[in-house]
Amino acid sequence: MSEDLKLAQRQLEELGQEINSGASEKFYAFNKSFQGLCQKVVRLESLIEVSQIVNSTLQLKELLPLIMESTTKLMKAEASSLMLIDEGHFVFEVAIGEKKDEIKKIRLPITEGVAGWVVQNKQPISIKDVTLDPRFCKKIDKDIGFVTKSLLCIPLLIKDKIIGVVEALNKIGEDGFSQDDLELLQAMANQGAIAIENARLYEDLKDLFFNSIKALVTTIEAKDPYTRGHSERVMKYSQTIVSELNLSDDEKEAIRLAGLLHDIGKIGIDEAIIRKPGRLTDEEFAEIKKHPTIGAEIIKPIKQLQSVVPGVWQHHERYDGGGYPYGLKGEGISFLGRVLAVADTFDAMTSDRPYRKGLSHQTAVEEIKEQCHRQFDPDIAEAFLKAYEKGLLDIRV
Amino acid sequence: MSEDLKLAQRQLEELGQEINSGASEKFYAFNKSFQGLCQKVVRLESLIEVSQIVNSTLQLKELLPLIMESTTKLMKAEASSLMLIDEGHFVFEVAIGEKKDEIKKIRLPITEGVAGWVVQNKQPISIKDVTLDPRFCKKIDKDIGFVTKSLLCIPLLIKDKIIGVVEALNKIGEDGFSQDDLELLQAMANQGAIAIENARLYEDLKDLFFNSIKALVTTIEAKDPYTRGHSERVMKYSQTIVSELNLSDDEKEAIRLAGLLHDIGKIGIDEAIIRKPGRLTDEEFAEIKKHPTIGAEIIKPIKQLQSVVPGVWQHHERYDGGGYPYGLKGEGISFLGRVLAVADTFDAMTSDRPYRKGLSHQTAVEEIKEQCHRQFDPDIAEAFLKAYEKGLLDIRV
Repeated sequence: MSEDLKLAQRQLEELGQEINSGASEKFYAFNKSFQGLCQKVVRLESLIEVSQIVNSTLQLKELLPLIMESTTKLMKAEASSLMLIDEGHFVFEVAIGEKKDEIKKIRLPITEGVAGWVVQNKQPISIKDVTLDPRFCKKIDKDIGFVTKSLLCIPLLIKDKIIGVVEALNKIGEDGFSQDDLELLQAMANQGAIAIENARLYEDLKDLFFNSIKALVTTIEAKDPYTRGHSERVMKYSQTIVSELNLSDDEKEAIRLAGLLHDIGKIGIDEAIIRKPGRLTDEEFAEIKKHPTIGAEIIKPIKQLQSVVPGVWQHHERYDGGGYPYGLKGEGISFLGRVLAVADTFDAMTSDRPYRKGLSHQTAVEEIKEQCHRQFDPDIAEAFLKAYEKGLLDIRV
Repeated sequence: MSEDLKLAQRQLEELGQEINSGASEKFYAFNKSFQGLCQKVVRLESLIEVSQIVNSTLQLKELLPLIMESTTKLMKAEASSLMLIDEGHFVFEVAIGEKKDEIKKIRLPITEGVAGWVVQNKQPISIKDVTLDPRFCKKIDKDIGFVTKSLLCIPLLIKDKIIGVVEALNKIGEDGFSQDDLELLQAMANQGAIAIENARLYEDLKDLFFNSIKALVTTIEAKDPYTRGHSERVMKYSQTIVSELNLSDDEKEAIRLAGLLHDIGKIGIDEAIIRKPGRLTDEEFAEIKKHPTIGAEIIKPIKQLQSVVPGVWQHHERYDGGGYPYGLKGEGISFLGRVLAVADTFDAMTSDRPYRKGLSHQTAVEEIKEQCHRQFDPDIAEAFLKAYEKGLLDIRV
């Protein structure tokens, strides 16, 4: 409770002592309203705090539990949940309370239960005793060993579209949820819905970006039937190699994009050389060797891809300095470049070529072990071997 | 004021009548706190409303003025402004009040004025009389003909980074802004900052997407030196053609992408045919004619590009039904296809080719007029001619 609230409370108490408040109906009536108002201020202040949390992050996974937890405490509810609609079912996105882990496994048809009613009628509902309400779905309580008594359920709306519901269960110490509880939960739900929609728009755009790049890379690759799927596999191998390192989301994203884009420079090499089935002449090989530089040049003007450039540029460098285009050595090669080198070589060794069949995974892994310190960074090679032993390299593209 | 507030107000009045409130210091003291509390509730409720508006849209241009307007009213300020930092300067992003149009033209170094102090010290400041404060920058008042008296200035912070300031000017009817005003403005500013950051992240990703596509398209185009810049020009011509039609943002975005991607299918055609300097044989031309279909196939799997597909697919259809690949006719060709047909043809006619020099804009425009109803949709052709007459087709790529 804030200072100004405490002061007013104390002052009213003193006023009550001065007048004969016990005998004054008017004092009693006002005091009741005043206490309600104080509660309202406390709740509004919490809501402000929540609205600060909301959208301070686009990370929905962190945000929604935070909102739900403070709502549950504030409303004095035993438990609460946020369900999103997914292909005709409710999926529990957030659950707060004792049985939260059990409840999260449940998928409920959107026609069922009180939530189903709320979705159909697009309006909130407060039930004092669910045992007396035929809409209540008893099965969940039975399955997870929870006893629901009172229930408050609110629709999650984006503009006019319903995307889910929020429920508060079992008001502690009272006979059911009040109109104030309903309004508070509604306000919190609105905040949550807005955050969900913002995050969805962002994710949607991210998908569009990634899928468009993938589509174009795949098309470029299709020019050489022997490298079909290569970039996507290198992306996945690279992701696997770094999966147990403690990388930030941005670093993981850079790995993904560098994997996908590492051979993009081949678009600048003469098709006749790219598609040549036999051995290349020295001249032709010199041409091929330009592709990391061409690739880096293509993405360099894009400011958000700066962190990806070193990976594209250096995926043919060798740890011992014998690679191209610059003959960089050891840690002089960027982390991305060292990761891609392993992933790229592994895929090249295990893929069929016009003039030879691909090696088995096992043989290729032996080869990478062999090339530790020479071609590859030993730490990266080790991470790769660990991933192999865990069976993480068995991917299909 | 909400109903519960009004009720409490009435009840306190009645209580005051019952007791001899005029003589009670305690009543006086409490009443003062109570009125402050009521004001607080009103403000908190407005802030809730604002937080509903915030992030209900990613359209910052609509959002920020809404926030600032309701804040100004609520605080009883004469004017207010939101300034963002842009390359060492404050830029007025939103201004509310009589002189708002004048103030928006101003760019202020971030070291200057009270705002400069707030940026340096990362803390808010409230000044009762700016004429007594040496930090105040008198020049702006003089330039726009405004007289500032009291001033409240708040930093706009994203995590720890300062991105701008919010100012409220001239508290109406009082001697300066209160601590409550400061807290309210701070809460509103936080909401605004969150919305700004969300919108920036979104815009940033959008840029990344668009620039990446452009980079790849440009690279693919570079295979044929005679079409360099073609896709970007077709995009710009298409945008120009539709610029005076009343299209939604989504439709405009589809035009942009369709323009950029319309020839993407050429990546699937043999390079030797694409680069052939002389006339094509019938067989070779049949190959070339596949590019709209190949292009459509490339982007079809991407769900967010569905609206772009018809444009790519149909940019070589003719209004009279004589085009390819399907010989669609009139309105049977998608709007996007009809727009791209004009833009694409105009750029093809005005660009140099190995075997001929490009036509002048004027000659090409005459040709398009000539082909109205035959090759082109007359409405689209007319929109194109209007744009030409306005000089909007003089673009450099």
